[in-house]
Amino acid sequence: MSVSPTSTGQQPGILDFDRIQQVRQNFPILHELVHGDLPLVYLDSAATSQKPKCVVDKIVEAYEKYNSNVHRGIHALGDRMTTEMESAREKIARFIGASTAEQVIFTSGTTMSVNLVAHGWAARHLRPGDEILLNEMEHHANFVPWQMAAQASGATLRFLPLTVDWQLDLSRLDEFINSKTRLVAVAGMSNVTGTIHDVSRIADAAHAVGARVFVDAAQSAAHGLTNVQTGNIDFLAFSGHKLLGPTGLGILYGKPDALGEIQPVFGGGHMIREVTKSGSTWADLPARLEAGTAAFVECAGMGAAIDYLESIGMESLARYEHSLLELAHARLSQIPGLTIFGPEVAHKGAIVSMVHEQIHAHDLADLLDRQGVAIRAGHHCTMPLHELFGVAATARASFAFYNTPDEVEKLASAIEKAIEVFQRRSHRRANRSL
Amino acid sequence: MSVSPTSTGQQPGILDFDRIQQVRQNFPILHELVHGDLPLVYLDSAATSQKPKCVVDKIVEAYEKYNSNVHRGIHALGDRMTTEMESAREKIARFIGASTAEQVIFTSGTTMSVNLVAHGWAARHLRPGDEILLNEMEHHANFVPWQMAAQASGATLRFLPLTVDWQLDLSRLDEFINSKTRLVAVAGMSNVTGTIHDVSRIADAAHAVGARVFVDAAQSAAHGLTNVQTGNIDFLAFSGHKLLGPTGLGILYGKPDALGEIQPVFGGGHMIREVTKSGSTWADLPARLEAGTAAFVECAGMGAAIDYLESIGMESLARYEHSLLELAHARLSQIPGLTIFGPEVAHKGAIVSMVHEQIHAHDLADLLDRQGVAIRAGHHCTMPLHELFGVAATARASFAFYNTPDEVEKLASAIEKAIEVFQRRSHRRANRSL
Repeated sequence: MSVSPTSTGQQPGILDFDRIQQVRQNFPILHELVHGDLPLVYLDSAATSQKPKCVVDKIVEAYEKYNSNVHRGIHALGDRMTTEMESAREKIARFIGASTAEQVIFTSGTTMSVNLVAHGWAARHLRPGDEILLNEMEHHANFVPWQMAAQASGATLRFLPLTVDWQLDLSRLDEFINSKTRLVAVAGMSNVTGTIHDVSRIADAAHAVGARVFVDAAQSAAHGLTNVQTGNIDFLAFSGHKLLGPTGLGILYGKPDALGEIQPVFGGGHMIREVTKSGSTWADLPARLEAGTAAFVECAGMGAAIDYLESIGMESLARYEHSLLELAHARLSQIPGLTIFGPEVAHKGAIVSMVHEQIHAHDLADLLDRQGVAIRAGHHCTMPLHELFGVAATARASFAFYNTPDEVEKLASAIEKAIEVFQRRSHRRANRSL
Repeated sequence: MSVSPTSTGQQPGILDFDRIQQVRQNFPILHELVHGDLPLVYLDSAATSQKPKCVVDKIVEAYEKYNSNVHRGIHALGDRMTTEMESAREKIARFIGASTAEQVIFTSGTTMSVNLVAHGWAARHLRPGDEILLNEMEHHANFVPWQMAAQASGATLRFLPLTVDWQLDLSRLDEFINSKTRLVAVAGMSNVTGTIHDVSRIADAAHAVGARVFVDAAQSAAHGLTNVQTGNIDFLAFSGHKLLGPTGLGILYGKPDALGEIQPVFGGGHMIREVTKSGSTWADLPARLEAGTAAFVECAGMGAAIDYLESIGMESLARYEHSLLELAHARLSQIPGLTIFGPEVAHKGAIVSMVHEQIHAHDLADLLDRQGVAIRAGHHCTMPLHELFGVAATARASFAFYNTPDEVEKLASAIEKAIEVFQRRSHRRANRSL
């Protein structure tokens, strides 16, 4: 039985270990074999999520039934494609709690969404002496653009300290948010430690001094943690491909007045009202910030992804993922020599980044890959955080609602086997050098 | 019999009216009905091309077999997806005549490619008094970003005049290219008049004064008119979706020294070498200009599109399209009251933009749509050109190699019928008001 939106009939809120095999039927890739005959254990969803069949089907349908450029059309195909795209915008608005679809801007990804605000708002609105509050846990996508904006505007970057258990030290918010603060940029959830940040509390502190809050929801959106109303968020960015949707599509949400403060960065078709030799004027939102042909087929696919997620139910999904995370922490913390970077499971989402005292993270990931277990190793685009960790790389396993308790166990036993292989090798090397 | 790259075995160069039905079998959408029971006549390829089945199949394969984020992976899926993406970069390089794959930068579309050069090169390199040479025939995507760059840098925009038959007046190049010229931005082919510009001659004139040439190949690339070597082009931009490929993907080509002069505009993951609290340094090309997660599935799809185009053969394709254009001009020029804006067919590609003396372009497009003929009406993102035309909108039919002589005839007879319907209506209105 399928749980795709069109065929389930089931109420959201009942995702559990019994139902998960049904869910996995919707994801063809989860039944792939790797390295010849090993069942794939995909624990890299923080890098990109897998796609349910309904999303891929929607993409095929769009290309084969009504592919046509949008908005400027006068023919049947163009009308249909435009309807699909704008319907996706409405679904996304509802999904994040935005009050109108016009608050949803399509971009090419989270990175471009951040850059749009950094270049179109921060670099043009901030003055020398103004402050942007960051922290050292942020992804480079929510770090480097603000460095660029600070450099362009003369504003100063400040960094909210972290606690010893890899949370933001919110007890020091008052010290770091002051009358000079114009923007606080923060992730909803760390892509390395999994730490879930109290965005609402940060927003309150920022708004008390008239500052804007920018939330990088690239991770948090996929875990049901993103609501712009309850979080009172000014700007929010995320990517389709981490949320069951297609690659090549990002979203920028903004409060109407916040979006209104963004100067168009990119010129081109669709974003203009009038173009003359002597100058141009801009269209209304959202077109004003969407220069050029949109990724309209990707938008249609994203609409299908939202439908699917809502058929699962985000609360149910989050609860299920959390139970996987609890299992993973309980099991992995028993493995000698393994250190997990992050807070207690109560304060984090379903990501486990770790190092082993003897094995380099890349070697660990490689030894796991040979057993069919796909994790990721590196700095995960968070060099400043890894500087604090004191290691160049961590090995990161990241879970989605399509993973299983069995896969958690496979991860743990694969790590144990990797350690065994590594220690045997070291032993042989030691013997040879005697 | 299929002519897809994997199954044809035929040599390129033999596309003709006999073979075209085989080609059309590769495009499922061309067999769709619109408005219930009308066969689709798709004459809007200048807005977006249709996709052969092999491209859609590749996208499905990528999502269902090896979807994974690229470059930073340590596992089997990541390696495969990275190979697909980088193989597409190599195919694209070969397709446009670039000497190395590193000269191919992936962006989200032509518009973003232009903006990348306008913001990262022009706005930062040009000084007050420097000149950018444009013309009034350019698409807004190759117009507005240069206005923005001129405004940011204090450079001056100049406009090469057009001839009475809607070509660039190259006899006046010497007058408009001088020691102050730093950049000449020009399309390979107009998206409205279809005019093919002598890019090579313009490049020679620009290089003689040390200026760079930027070519908007959004239209010309799809018609086999784009080779960066023979054109001696410094920067070149085009979109995947107009070249049988997926939406959401653009390409920026640059000569190595030209790309090297672009300052990174967008910060984020992948484009950095090192990030610290105090500042960041940049990676080598092409990564330096590719911030964030690439549209990796779209890249894989684009690789399949290039394979397909090469199986058809671009010279063969261009010859075939030209014969369609000749048919269209011959037939449409006999329709009373219809004016085509553009040069003789010898100087243009397969686009026909027209007005009827009595019928508004939007009404004409609407009357055609009701007969299943999909054309586009409007200013086609060229308001300055339409200002010169003296009309707010034109009706544009644009052809691809998957169109047929029969479809040209359907266009012509649909226009004749539209005129008849319009005149009958006018007559009734006139009678009523008597």
